Amino acid sequence: MIRLAFDVMGGDFAPTETLKGAYLALKETDIHLVLLGPKALLEKELATIPDFPLDRVTLCDAPDVVGMGEHPAQAFRKKKNSSIQLGLNLVRDKEADGFISAGNTGAVMATSTLTLGKIPGVERPAIATILPSKQGPFVMLDMGSNVDCKPQHLEQFALMGHFFSKLTLGIDSPRVALLNIGEERDKGNHLSLEAYELIEKLPIQFIGNIEGKDILFGKADVIVCDGFVGNCLLKFGEGVSELFMDFFRGEAKFSWISALGLMILKPGLKRFIKKFDYQEYGGAPLLGVNGISIIAHGKSKKVAIKNAILRGKQAAENQLVQKVTEALSQ
Amino acid sequence: MIRLAFDVMGGDFAPTETLKGAYLALKETDIHLVLLGPKALLEKELATIPDFPLDRVTLCDAPDVVGMGEHPAQAFRKKKNSSIQLGLNLVRDKEADGFISAGNTGAVMATSTLTLGKIPGVERPAIATILPSKQGPFVMLDMGSNVDCKPQHLEQFALMGHFFSKLTLGIDSPRVALLNIGEERDKGNHLSLEAYELIEKLPIQFIGNIEGKDILFGKADVIVCDGFVGNCLLKFGEGVSELFMDFFRGEAKFSWISALGLMILKPGLKRFIKKFDYQEYGGAPLLGVNGISIIAHGKSKKVAIKNAILRGKQAAENQLVQKVTEALSQ
Repeated sequence: MIRLAFDVMGGDFAPTETLKGAYLALKETDIHLVLLGPKALLEKELATIPDFPLDRVTLCDAPDVVGMGEHPAQAFRKKKNSSIQLGLNLVRDKEADGFISAGNTGAVMATSTLTLGKIPGVERPAIATILPSKQGPFVMLDMGSNVDCKPQHLEQFALMGHFFSKLTLGIDSPRVALLNIGEERDKGNHLSLEAYELIEKLPIQFIGNIEGKDILFGKADVIVCDGFVGNCLLKFGEGVSELFMDFFRGEAKFSWISALGLMILKPGLKRFIKKFDYQEYGGAPLLGVNGISIIAHGKSKKVAIKNAILRGKQAAENQLVQKVTEALSQ
Repeated sequence: MIRLAFDVMGGDFAPTETLKGAYLALKETDIHLVLLGPKALLEKELATIPDFPLDRVTLCDAPDVVGMGEHPAQAFRKKKNSSIQLGLNLVRDKEADGFISAGNTGAVMATSTLTLGKIPGVERPAIATILPSKQGPFVMLDMGSNVDCKPQHLEQFALMGHFFSKLTLGIDSPRVALLNIGEERDKGNHLSLEAYELIEKLPIQFIGNIEGKDILFGKADVIVCDGFVGNCLLKFGEGVSELFMDFFRGEAKFSWISALGLMILKPGLKRFIKKFDYQEYGGAPLLGVNGISIIAHGKSKKVAIKNAILRGKQAAENQLVQKVTEALSQ
């Protein structure tokens, strides 16, 4: 049985929503979870969920708590008994098949890299997020792990993204694209121009540059970018969605007639929102570290948490780390 | 009377929509337009609009046409009689107060810089786009003129953006922010970390870093970023809007009941779309060149063209170039 270490203390809605998410994951699939957090708190919270399958969990006391705004390096140095550190120790020591956290992203990244080490051939691990498009999900990386990339880092992202898409989305020959300001190969900044030359030599299906306007239209299965741009785009997308939700909330209050219009559209809107809701797509693995480490959004509620845990299970079952390691060694 | 040079041949819908836009601008405000394009074509197109105010236009024969995909430097070197080159010559020679084009952005940028020269103190001109937010319009720059920026370029963008916002949006003390992946000052890539230190020393209201999710919520009047990121974000935003429009079009066809729901919501949707439609905000000036050069979106239809021409008139009336030049010399 797949055994995953889960950070109960991570995220804006921990520990209530995280435990609920763990509960949903345990109900839906056959896994064992190591729950990490201050033991007394875990026991108290678990007591509030009557039918929690306690036979499939192990409690691991992690008295130190890393705050969402805490400095990553400092958290790593000073909080040796945090849920993040102890969870990643379990992965390192092969006592767990993967680690999942919605906690402080910087701390999870730094602690993952420092505890698990990197796969040979990878200089910088990257956050690979599964995002929705009109044609279905695709992978985008890096979403914020490396904010100053060199061309060879993007090259490694392309290769890791290729394998991640293959193993996770089941795409035989993923179409890999480079995010750029124009489709022509002579467009872009120094980084993208040089990365283009490296990526096109890889034994993958490289389809060239993709522009921002095409990201959500399913033209590529993997989109490679530097972590600064990726993070800005991801957060901008969240902002735009929020703005639309704001509009609908405003209309609902505007008049009874507009409320009626919205009520009629509700099923369609729900389908649309479900399709484009990050909560449905679970967490993002930190690709390139020597073990499975899944980073979930800090705002994850129970469904997002459940999906992040399922993503961890899938990565373990697919032997994601072994396969990427083998591929990179060739 | 303000006299503006207008590129009739620029944009995906030239010359029909561009001339219609010129017509709307002439109807709405008291300006003189120099219309640039192959003379025979201009005359033929003008004949299709019966009440075109011919007394307030001058035709300028520009036989060379720069294609939308043409290489900017090549267009500059080889097409000395293009509407872009001849229009900018008029601005350089003080025979026009400004130039407006929806043509090949790269060619307009390059030709503007090479023909008009740069304002002393500016190393890189920047495209300053006026964008909608929940709280009203704001300025974002650079949107694609400089894809490899140094910290001092972002510093100059902050200063130019400050003056542009003041003169164009009428904001006394614009709140200037730096786009970044976190709000804390120690977050970001090398470029943003160093730019932060330079911008905070400027005599402007610098409010620090802003994240992607907050861009459209009116937290800043000016947002400074490198042209690669700005261009990716701008195009991504267009893609997201298109996706939403797609959804509504799909729903309208889905069933008669959802079509009814949409019909009810139509006035609200129209208000929302109008508020967030780039066509309403006209063109973006290339700030830092020694003359007014307004770049409109290649997909501009008549309303967007009209607004870009009005933006040019406003910049000329406000003496945008003189004021930025004075400010930078201090």
